[in-house]
Amino acid sequence: MTLQQILEEVESGRLSAAEAEVLLKKESHETKGYDEMGYAKIDTDREKRTGFAEVIYCAGKAPEHLVNIFARIYHENGEVFGTRATKEQYEMILERFPETVFDPVSHILKIEKLEKEYIGRVAVCTAGTADIAVAEEAAQTAEYFGTRVDRVYDVGVSGMHRLFSRLDVIQEANCVVAVAGMEGALASVMGGLVRRPVIAVPTSVGYGANFGGLSALLTMINSCANGIAVVNIDNGFGAGYLATQINRLAEGK
Amino acid sequence: MTLQQILEEVESGRLSAAEAEVLLKKESHETKGYDEMGYAKIDTDREKRTGFAEVIYCAGKAPEHLVNIFARIYHENGEVFGTRATKEQYEMILERFPETVFDPVSHILKIEKLEKEYIGRVAVCTAGTADIAVAEEAAQTAEYFGTRVDRVYDVGVSGMHRLFSRLDVIQEANCVVAVAGMEGALASVMGGLVRRPVIAVPTSVGYGANFGGLSALLTMINSCANGIAVVNIDNGFGAGYLATQINRLAEGK
Amino acid sequence: MTLQQILEEVESGRLSAAEAEVLLKKESHETKGYDEMGYAKIDTDREKRTGFAEVIYCAGKAPEHLVNIFARIYHENGEVFGTRATKEQYEMILERFPETVFDPVSHILKIEKLEKEYIGRVAVCTAGTADIAVAEEAAQTAEYFGTRVDRVYDVGVSGMHRLFSRLDVIQEANCVVAVAGMEGALASVMGGLVRRPVIAVPTSVGYGANFGGLSALLTMINSCANGIAVVNIDNGFGAGYLATQINRLAEGK
Amino acid sequence: MTLQQILEEVESGRLSAAEAEVLLKKESHETKGYDEMGYAKIDTDREKRTGFAEVIYCAGKAPEHLVNIFARIYHENGEVFGTRATKEQYEMILERFPETVFDPVSHILKIEKLEKEYIGRVAVCTAGTADIAVAEEAAQTAEYFGTRVDRVYDVGVSGMHRLFSRLDVIQEANCVVAVAGMEGALASVMGGLVRRPVIAVPTSVGYGANFGGLSALLTMINSCANGIAVVNIDNGFGAGYLATQINRLAEGK
Amino acid sequence: MTLQQILEEVESGRLSAAEAEVLLKKESHETKGYDEMGYAKIDTDREKRTGFAEVIYCAGKAPEHLVNIFARIYHENGEVFGTRATKEQYEMILERFPETVFDPVSHILKIEKLEKEYIGRVAVCTAGTADIAVAEEAAQTAEYFGTRVDRVYDVGVSGMHRLFSRLDVIQEANCVVAVAGMEGALASVMGGLVRRPVIAVPTSVGYGANFGGLSALLTMINSCANGIAVVNIDNGFGAGYLATQINRLAEGK
Amino acid sequence: MTLQQILEEVESGRLSAAEAEVLLKKESHETKGYDEMGYAKIDTDREKRTGFAEVIYCAGKAPEHLVNIFARIYHENGEVFGTRATKEQYEMILERFPETVFDPVSHILKIEKLEKEYIGRVAVCTAGTADIAVAEEAAQTAEYFGTRVDRVYDVGVSGMHRLFSRLDVIQEANCVVAVAGMEGALASVMGGLVRRPVIAVPTSVGYGANFGGLSALLTMINSCANGIAVVNIDNGFGAGYLATQINRLAEGK
Amino acid sequence: MTLQQILEEVESGRLSAAEAEVLLKKESHETKGYDEMGYAKIDTDREKRTGFAEVIYCAGKAPEHLVNIFARIYHENGEVFGTRATKEQYEMILERFPETVFDPVSHILKIEKLEKEYIGRVAVCTAGTADIAVAEEAAQTAEYFGTRVDRVYDVGVSGMHRLFSRLDVIQEANCVVAVAGMEGALASVMGGLVRRPVIAVPTSVGYGANFGGLSALLTMINSCANGIAVVNIDNGFGAGYLATQINRLAEGK
Amino acid sequence: MTLQQILEEVESGRLSAAEAEVLLKKESHETKGYDEMGYAKIDTDREKRTGFAEVIYCAGKAPEHLVNIFARIYHENGEVFGTRATKEQYEMILERFPETVFDPVSHILKIEKLEKEYIGRVAVCTAGTADIAVAEEAAQTAEYFGTRVDRVYDVGVSGMHRLFSRLDVIQEANCVVAVAGMEGALASVMGGLVRRPVIAVPTSVGYGANFGGLSALLTMINSCANGIAVVNIDNGFGAGYLATQINRLAEGK
Repeated sequence: MTLQQILEEVESGRLSAAEAEVLLKKESHETKGYDEMGYAKIDTDREKRTGFAEVIYCAGKAPEHLVNIFARIYHENGEVFGTRATKEQYEMILERFPETVFDPVSHILKIEKLEKEYIGRVAVCTAGTADIAVAEEAAQTAEYFGTRVDRVYDVGVSGMHRLFSRLDVIQEANCVVAVAGMEGALASVMGGLVRRPVIAVPTSVGYGANFGGLSALLTMINSCANGIAVVNIDNGFGAGYLATQINRLAEGK
Repeated sequence: MTLQQILEEVESGRLSAAEAEVLLKKESHETKGYDEMGYAKIDTDREKRTGFAEVIYCAGKAPEHLVNIFARIYHENGEVFGTRATKEQYEMILERFPETVFDPVSHILKIEKLEKEYIGRVAVCTAGTADIAVAEEAAQTAEYFGTRVDRVYDVGVSGMHRLFSRLDVIQEANCVVAVAGMEGALASVMGGLVRRPVIAVPTSVGYGANFGGLSALLTMINSCANGIAVVNIDNGFGAGYLATQINRLAEGK
Repeated sequence: MTLQQILEEVESGRLSAAEAEVLLKKESHETKGYDEMGYAKIDTDREKRTGFAEVIYCAGKAPEHLVNIFARIYHENGEVFGTRATKEQYEMILERFPETVFDPVSHILKIEKLEKEYIGRVAVCTAGTADIAVAEEAAQTAEYFGTRVDRVYDVGVSGMHRLFSRLDVIQEANCVVAVAGMEGALASVMGGLVRRPVIAVPTSVGYGANFGGLSALLTMINSCANGIAVVNIDNGFGAGYLATQINRLAEGK
Repeated sequence: MTLQQILEEVESGRLSAAEAEVLLKKESHETKGYDEMGYAKIDTDREKRTGFAEVIYCAGKAPEHLVNIFARIYHENGEVFGTRATKEQYEMILERFPETVFDPVSHILKIEKLEKEYIGRVAVCTAGTADIAVAEEAAQTAEYFGTRVDRVYDVGVSGMHRLFSRLDVIQEANCVVAVAGMEGALASVMGGLVRRPVIAVPTSVGYGANFGGLSALLTMINSCANGIAVVNIDNGFGAGYLATQINRLAEGK
Repeated sequence: MTLQQILEEVESGRLSAAEAEVLLKKESHETKGYDEMGYAKIDTDREKRTGFAEVIYCAGKAPEHLVNIFARIYHENGEVFGTRATKEQYEMILERFPETVFDPVSHILKIEKLEKEYIGRVAVCTAGTADIAVAEEAAQTAEYFGTRVDRVYDVGVSGMHRLFSRLDVIQEANCVVAVAGMEGALASVMGGLVRRPVIAVPTSVGYGANFGGLSALLTMINSCANGIAVVNIDNGFGAGYLATQINRLAEGK
Repeated sequence: MTLQQILEEVESGRLSAAEAEVLLKKESHETKGYDEMGYAKIDTDREKRTGFAEVIYCAGKAPEHLVNIFARIYHENGEVFGTRATKEQYEMILERFPETVFDPVSHILKIEKLEKEYIGRVAVCTAGTADIAVAEEAAQTAEYFGTRVDRVYDVGVSGMHRLFSRLDVIQEANCVVAVAGMEGALASVMGGLVRRPVIAVPTSVGYGANFGGLSALLTMINSCANGIAVVNIDNGFGAGYLATQINRLAEGK
Repeated sequence: MTLQQILEEVESGRLSAAEAEVLLKKESHETKGYDEMGYAKIDTDREKRTGFAEVIYCAGKAPEHLVNIFARIYHENGEVFGTRATKEQYEMILERFPETVFDPVSHILKIEKLEKEYIGRVAVCTAGTADIAVAEEAAQTAEYFGTRVDRVYDVGVSGMHRLFSRLDVIQEANCVVAVAGMEGALASVMGGLVRRPVIAVPTSVGYGANFGGLSALLTMINSCANGIAVVNIDNGFGAGYLATQINRLAEGK
Repeated sequence: MTLQQILEEVESGRLSAAEAEVLLKKESHETKGYDEMGYAKIDTDREKRTGFAEVIYCAGKAPEHLVNIFARIYHENGEVFGTRATKEQYEMILERFPETVFDPVSHILKIEKLEKEYIGRVAVCTAGTADIAVAEEAAQTAEYFGTRVDRVYDVGVSGMHRLFSRLDVIQEANCVVAVAGMEGALASVMGGLVRRPVIAVPTSVGYGANFGGLSALLTMINSCANGIAVVNIDNGFGAGYLATQINRLAEGK
């Protein structure tokens, strides 16, 4: 029996919740380390292995798949976190889970435990206003995983005094996330000013020869400064995840 | 007077070493934060600002420039570290500094302080044998900056049991450096197995459609696993630097 | 007279079906090996030459062209198979052929003979849930041509234990189809684990620097493992076709 | 003790060959499935797992590493096969193993068992004369692994009658290897003429906008014909390996 | 006074048609060789210089600009020819010029003189059905400029017998236009079979790694056959123009 | 208090305009050189530093952000200039500032001071009619910053006499802006004819292998003529800005 | 017996020349249309089919292969033409055929019949001096095939008056070959000035972002002028071949 | 008679210098505006038209061509300037013109008039030491054409204090040349700090994903700062030329 079949059995009353739980726990978790849902295999072993519970990349997921995976993880962990969600997906989920929260800027969809404790300190910076969507994905991801975040937005290199006026916040962080589109020079400038790792996130913001973010990606990969860790174009989630890993190490977790 | 002029004055006996020191210290370090050499400005403020003393990228440097910069940093710090050096550059330096050491695999040229203390633990891994040159650049960079390094070589995904047999070493490190050419899949596999950051170094090893390392770079940037920090193709130095930053944080430095 | 003219003659009653059949059979099949339809030349010789009857690539076909080609092949073979169909195309065909079946996941449109016999065994695997659309195109193509298929979905390298738990199924197949987007590392991992050919299908799933599937394509083309046969991005049909060729050889057909 | 240490012990007489064998067999093969050589891990489990013994990619290997790996595999299997070797590497190996054979066209270096049995039939074809180097790498790889090979050279599409005059040989093969540079159209033409898989090998032969083989690679990946399995640019070895896998299946191995 | 101002004067009755004609002829044609319209300069000297009257590239033209340019050329030449027109543009023009004809396949919009004489012979061929839109742009362009055209559609290399059955038509033409997407191998095959120039038109038909027609373009540019003249992706107009130039030369015009 | 909070205080009557002005002037301008708005930092120091007041890149700005930034700059400078605005953005701004002007060709949104004085002379030229949108962005930007502009449109190289007939205007300008898509040859031709700098603006006008303007960009960057300054694809604003800098120098400003 | 075997038989005296001729003629020419040489298949049917005898692309040919193919074609046709030859290849051929001529500029190696008749007129033009090597390949190819050629060198667009002073020669030709590197604008300018086809040859001359000729290729493919036929980068031979085809048509051949 | 023939006549004494001068002046300069040398057409009209005498791009020029062109321009102008010269070319020229000067850093070869007057002020800056070769080409070009130059080297963004300490020099210049490889961020930072145009020169300095300077080129083209004029990769000459044009305008020339 797949997870879906078990859940349908419970829904129809032919299986009690308690029996289902036993079935699910025994088969999947202990033996295989994942839940078989046919179209997906929820990696229940992930938190133990990597320190991070599985999250959902919502883009392109079929509605019923999304709801089931959302529910499955929520029931497992008591909270759930999805990225790149649409307003339509949010509304569909909302019907079943009214406590769901959606942020239209970062496109994050989540139910989060209350009174979470935040540790350390990470600075999330952007070159321009249009980079904020990606920056918020990074910041909220880090926060979901327990990281304290400082936001420093619109400090691009065309007006360097804006960056210098916030340098104290940036230099005190355990690591810095630098989010920039166009030519992406922010990461190089940061790298020369701080002693901690700079996680560089190229964005697709810009036009013409930016080629969907390739320009910023190449800038960051070729940086003359050191201590620059590059992630994929627009990959705020990856940056928030990596920042959390580094922040945890710094805080002895 | 530029640094070069001052040094020539000392060489010719028209200026004492002590006077020169005063001149250099006062003018450059305290006021400007760098030494003006005309063709170069040695960033003497760097260690204070970033925690790392300046190193030398030897490739393409004119012989006399290289020697002068090498000497300048050595006198400043009591040790000096150069990457991408040629055998000819080594032999030229050797005449003036017989204590210089050159590693033909990593092309590192250095004079290193004795009895350095190493902290923490970083695992440097390669997919194949041909990736070792880049891996050694990473490993020796990290060691120069005081990081303890474990080497795990030739554990590419075409024979996964080799990787699994060394998983204990990899999972205990504060961070992992994954060096791979061809399709560069090693980083993704690592990312799914460890809780600490994976620094991915694409190499230009391979042929055909690897396009000088672009293939491995794209693989690593697009990794489905999280916690992957990518640096430039063949950039072992950058990886060793970033690994040191993370290792220091983990060790409370 | 072209095929279209003949069909119109039959429609208007000026030509009997039997007469038309004679005309069509004699002219096209025996002499030329194709049916001339003006805008298309149906390759009636294909099955004899390659072992595969002609199928329809529906994308971008004008409505009347699609219906006529669909009808022509159906009448020739008693079954017909179209890929990349839209819901609108399906509804138009449905009016004339109510037995038509459409799968919204794979976008396959077909009328298939009943009680088909399946031979051998091919494993169709995906890295993630979003790759299933392409995988189903591969699986259903192979099944249409008489291949028995095992589906192994969501076994990407970020959680390798999921793949290992299904390794028995994968290793027993005559060949494996590995469907993966993002960095496409699944194919390399497979190649190191099985003795049979791995057909690698890069998908356009992903974002940022995946460049519409180019990243996964380069990964698979540069694989450090051997026995990897690469097809075009999102080309599930090509993979199912190639898998059928190999499966037939293995079964002595 | 690493393999190297064990061998040095034997060389110096402090360890008998028999004892060494026991050590090596027990530790490496049974427990780990590979031989640890420090700079390399010989995958001794590979033949059992994939049906193919490990071969050596000679390009860029340090001399002493190459000799040791060559010796190690030779002693394990009684034969050994290296690709992309230089004349210098050959001469170095020749000193220790006078039975070594080197082919300057394909750059293959090998010691092969006598009276090998060949099964099935694979056709290796080229578009032009300049593609023969890659074709020979494919052909000799397939022969090394026990495949009977027919060579059909210089049958490019600018003079199609040359191809048609050899079509009988091509159509009878279990699979066809099509090696072509420039625009690489040979693979598409083949795909429309045979019922068995076509393994397409783009070569870097050509000039101008061929971009080192990218042109032929894109042609083959986008082929309008089906049953085309593409490997990397100039990857004759990969094609011979894949052809062997398919040929074995066809012959019931 | 610009053309627009002159026309408005005529419209309002302040200027007679005859006077306007004098103004326009004298100023523009004889002195400058073009009509100044502010947003455009109609090249009235073009036919004398190149043998071809100016045509209109409709894509992206503002409605009023398009109508005015259309009218201007029509009045000059008694006929007018526009490419890449939309249905909306057609309907707007139709209001003013009810004799306008629009072909939804090629997106050509025109008013053509009756009883045009056609000379010579050009064969326009396509690899597949989806290439017909581009082929019709080529064919109708050539016809507009007085070239006799034979259409040979759907003769791609996956079923070569279709091409061979029409070889007589192709070999008798003064030149051949080969329109193909996907891998674009048709041009190379043609080049080896005919003695006259082959104008190769890559199309954006295909998917995956065809990169909007780049794959076919590279194939055609790198063709191993000679006598291949390549034009831009989807540039049917350019092919029809070039074919007309060659056809005229062959017919002594 | 952020700027937004201050403005809200004024709006609600809890703060007088005069007090607000003091607050804003003191805190932001004198100390930091920018206004903190949370999602943006208005660079109030820019005009003093660069000679150009800050302008607004409207594309992708959230409605409320755009209105607030628009208002802020208007109040600072008495005029305001936005590029890449949509009609929707215009209508929203219009509600609050009825004196706003929108040009649907260049997509410029502005309130401009009356009776501005224009100095010097810049020629803005286009190759075709479709390049006018970008050219107007350049021309109106230059005019906003006080530059006198001559427009010379539709003088592409396919009819060189059109360009030569306007050469006097072009040669008298302090600098020339050459706007061209497709192959972008206009810039090279200009460079050989004038003694003043040519600012080359590649546009995305064209199709097929123009790759969104990359073709024209490469042409201009590789120009065989000298004195060519290239800006980003479709970057009319950047060209107008640069032309103004050069024009001011020529006029002694 | 292959051609090689037959020739060896003749060499050793076991076969008379006359007998050999019969063998070769009968077997190869009449039945197959090519000569089988093992490593090559000389296309003896080509002249009949395409109007052009086979020529030799010398680059990368093994010495003995080159000599044999050279001899074979020379004996067949009484003349022979090779492109991209090296000085070493020339010297080797010279030993056997002292009448061989080598041009170090174009790298053409040939033995040509005396008192050849030239027809028509083709203009071969270059943008700069560095493009002459490619232009000479084009010019001498056309001459070898009987075309009269006018050379017009160094008429690039940075000094347009040089081109205009030779316009009479260019406009009288049956077709124009425009050879240009860097930005390749020459072809577009030509296209607007002549009524005959322009064959555009991009060259790899230039540096920086010319990417080995890609810049010039894109310029020519995207030309705003019509009647532009593009061949591969540096492909002088292809241009001379195409020019000959067009010239023959114009001269009624 | 060509220039070469005339010069040979003078050399052999059959023509006096005075007669030759008349011939050359009358024919070439006044009527055609260039000197016909067969392989080159010296643009004698250029200085009048553009304000800059013709210079020589030495790379790839045949020895005798280079000497003749060098001599021709020297005799015309009394000075001559060549870029990208090799040491071998220098030595050859030196034999004939012992006053020739060669700079091995910038590869400039020249004979320059004494006591040249320099006007205005241009700042030439580099990010690193390895960019100096390109910077010197720019600086010496500008100086040759009469511009006063300040050199500011090694002020890259990884140590921003070095740049700030020289800001006075940079801000006082009529324009700034920013030379940078790797990620090329220097230009963006400059753009935000100065009121005059910044000429950005990407260099090929760097490794890995810098793709021969493409990375720096894209950075500079996509700069978020304004007033950035980009020239080709490593094109110091173009930058020096453009800087001179702007400097002359600023100085009223």
